[in-house]
Amino acid sequence: MIRDLTDDEARAALLCKWGEVATDVLPAWVAEMDYALAPPITRALTEAVAAGLTGYPRLGVGGPLGRAYAGFAERQFGHVVDPEQVLPVVDVTAGVRLALDAVGARGPMVMPVPGYAPQLDIAAITGRERLDLVVDPDAARAELDLDLLERHFANGARSLLLTQPHNPWGRAFTRAELEGVRDVVLRHGALVVSDEIHAPLVLPGAEHVPYLAVEGTAGHTVAVVAASKAFNIAGLKCAQLVTADPSLAERLRSVPMARNDSWSSLGVAASVAAYDHGDAWLAALRVRLGDQRALLGELLATHLPEARMRPLEATYLAWLDLRPYGHDDPAAVALERGKVRLSPGHHYHPGLSGHLRLNLATSPERLTEIVRRLARAVTATP
Amino acid sequence: MIRDLTDDEARAALLCKWGEVATDVLPAWVAEMDYALAPPITRALTEAVAAGLTGYPRLGVGGPLGRAYAGFAERQFGHVVDPEQVLPVVDVTAGVRLALDAVGARGPMVMPVPGYAPQLDIAAITGRERLDLVVDPDAARAELDLDLLERHFANGARSLLLTQPHNPWGRAFTRAELEGVRDVVLRHGALVVSDEIHAPLVLPGAEHVPYLAVEGTAGHTVAVVAASKAFNIAGLKCAQLVTADPSLAERLRSVPMARNDSWSSLGVAASVAAYDHGDAWLAALRVRLGDQRALLGELLATHLPEARMRPLEATYLAWLDLRPYGHDDPAAVALERGKVRLSPGHHYHPGLSGHLRLNLATSPERLTEIVRRLARAVTATP
Ligand SMILES: Cc1ncc(COP(=O)(O)O)c(C=O)c1O
Ligand SMILES: Cc1ncc(COP(=O)(O)O)c(C=O)c1O
Repeated sequence: MIRDLTDDEARAALLCKWGEVATDVLPAWVAEMDYALAPPITRALTEAVAAGLTGYPRLGVGGPLGRAYAGFAERQFGHVVDPEQVLPVVDVTAGVRLALDAVGARGPMVMPVPGYAPQLDIAAITGRERLDLVVDPDAARAELDLDLLERHFANGARSLLLTQPHNPWGRAFTRAELEGVRDVVLRHGALVVSDEIHAPLVLPGAEHVPYLAVEGTAGHTVAVVAASKAFNIAGLKCAQLVTADPSLAERLRSVPMARNDSWSSLGVAASVAAYDHGDAWLAALRVRLGDQRALLGELLATHLPEARMRPLEATYLAWLDLRPYGHDDPAAVALERGKVRLSPGHHYHPGLSGHLRLNLATSPERLTEIVRRLARAVTATP
Repeated sequence: MIRDLTDDEARAALLCKWGEVATDVLPAWVAEMDYALAPPITRALTEAVAAGLTGYPRLGVGGPLGRAYAGFAERQFGHVVDPEQVLPVVDVTAGVRLALDAVGARGPMVMPVPGYAPQLDIAAITGRERLDLVVDPDAARAELDLDLLERHFANGARSLLLTQPHNPWGRAFTRAELEGVRDVVLRHGALVVSDEIHAPLVLPGAEHVPYLAVEGTAGHTVAVVAASKAFNIAGLKCAQLVTADPSLAERLRSVPMARNDSWSSLGVAASVAAYDHGDAWLAALRVRLGDQRALLGELLATHLPEARMRPLEATYLAWLDLRPYGHDDPAAVALERGKVRLSPGHHYHPGLSGHLRLNLATSPERLTEIVRRLARAVTATP
């Protein structure tokens, strides 16, 4: 059910991941998958293009998109969502900005670090100071430091940009962990913006708990969700803000049109198809990604035995600690010497050396070659 | 070459214009056209969907999109654009916001009024006071009041949101008029953001002069352009910022990714097709819109002889002064009594009564019916 794209197909489909590297470089950087689209999405897009669905999308909350997401959340996460509290936005990052602009109090924003690189700028873009919740690179497990979160709020922070599941930590936070976050947040009356773009990508053995599914979070939470990452349609530009509190929903819905009307019609069509008819493909994808994860473990044991990778619970993005190999920027070394493009760790954690992020959502053959090239590059004597 | 959509086709293609009205209502409101797509666009989208072009678009300036726009600007307007100074943005309104955020000085923003309704909020959204350049509803011609512009700048305004050609004035400003604007702007060191989304829609007899084609504007201008309005692809989400000054270009290009990475891959594909292969269709469209304009003139003379419409030089949006018929909100009357949806004039000019905007980009039959319904509604004795 999961069909690997050939190199030529991947180059035609993934203009960023494959198009922004030289043809002799293997791309394992940006978060896109080298797999063919789920057939229901291709079908929906083909029909939409035949119908000339290029005009402005339907305005406002709810509708087919709201109902489709609510159905998906119920089936996938056992989470009940009110379709009328599903507001389209153009993409997840813009949705995070909108939530902060529209309902976030002024004052510093807390962000788990390492974090999705472009979002490290969100605090500054929205006029806030960023206070980091840093994971110690030597910690056995990547965890949210609730004592530090408490101190940040005590020092004036008013919001938390949660990422759940977390890229690049690879964590799906447990209900108990999220309850811990909630307790701290409630004590300080802060806002949580919960970026759940990777929610459908929990791997075999883990479970996604939407932050809004934790009791007592409705009054302080805007979740940002999308079909884009799990179904490889991030270029189509449609994400959703989800709330469970009528007054938060109303404040988001009533922002002026010029602040939020940029989602695309074809993005809506593809997202509705993914949510309504993508379960089987998604189940197959999770199995495939689980296999890729196992393969990566074997490849690392063989070719990079000193590498450290914490258990990957969600996402197809592996966070590798390569400090034992002695390079400040192993991704740069890998690109130059190994012709494989990975994402430098310091993009996610400013100042951190010796780490990188590896995208395993490709064919077993390519993943094997990616690790081989990386290993040769970082172990070579220059 | 211009094919009218049937009602069913229009309902499937234009989810906002046709989908947000009851089925017994004729829509002549939002700026979309009831015509089938230009064949090169359908072809490009069909190929893109077959290739699975749903990943992130190519990043950064220039590229196929920059080259395509530069070619189009040269052929259509005799205007030379540096492809490397063409920066993608998600849509025109977001592009206007980005330009103001990234390179606009703080301080009030001047805006011609009546103006494109959602953009009346742009000043507030970007943290500015709005100072209006109001057209007297009784003026014979809609003109930019340069004395008032001068006074607004003298009173602290730092930027002008120009719309050229203008919706809903229907004007394509002449080179002499634009030189007048430039002189005032230069005296005060202000920024011009020139929204030129309607540029390809100059009607027979008029000409579009890009503001950047006026000598001496490069240092203070960001133009916002798109294929979206002329080719009916606004739902695909791709517009462009154009500059002619390396330092402005650099400042726009270097905003963080989380501030500008939301344009869609399929929007790029459709825009490139429109710019590269859309000239013939566009020429036919202009002829058709010229015919619709003539028909509207006849229909008004017959059915609404007291209506006043200034000469329509560009856009397919007619601004009608219906004050003689004695309704504060003739669009509301038309919707209720006439089952035709038009755009209320006070949406574009807060506080103005007796005006509305009529979208003539439909079939001659529908336009005839639109004016008949409007006339019956506003002339009926209740
Ligand atoms: C946690 C997280 N949020 C957001 C995004 C980007 O989403 P979008 O392209 O919709 O802004 C990514 C992309 O990988 C991500 O990992
Ligand atoms: C002058 C003007 N600018 C901008 C827009 C909207 O453009 P976008 O949907 O790309 O924001 C319109 C829509 O009709 C318009 O008339």
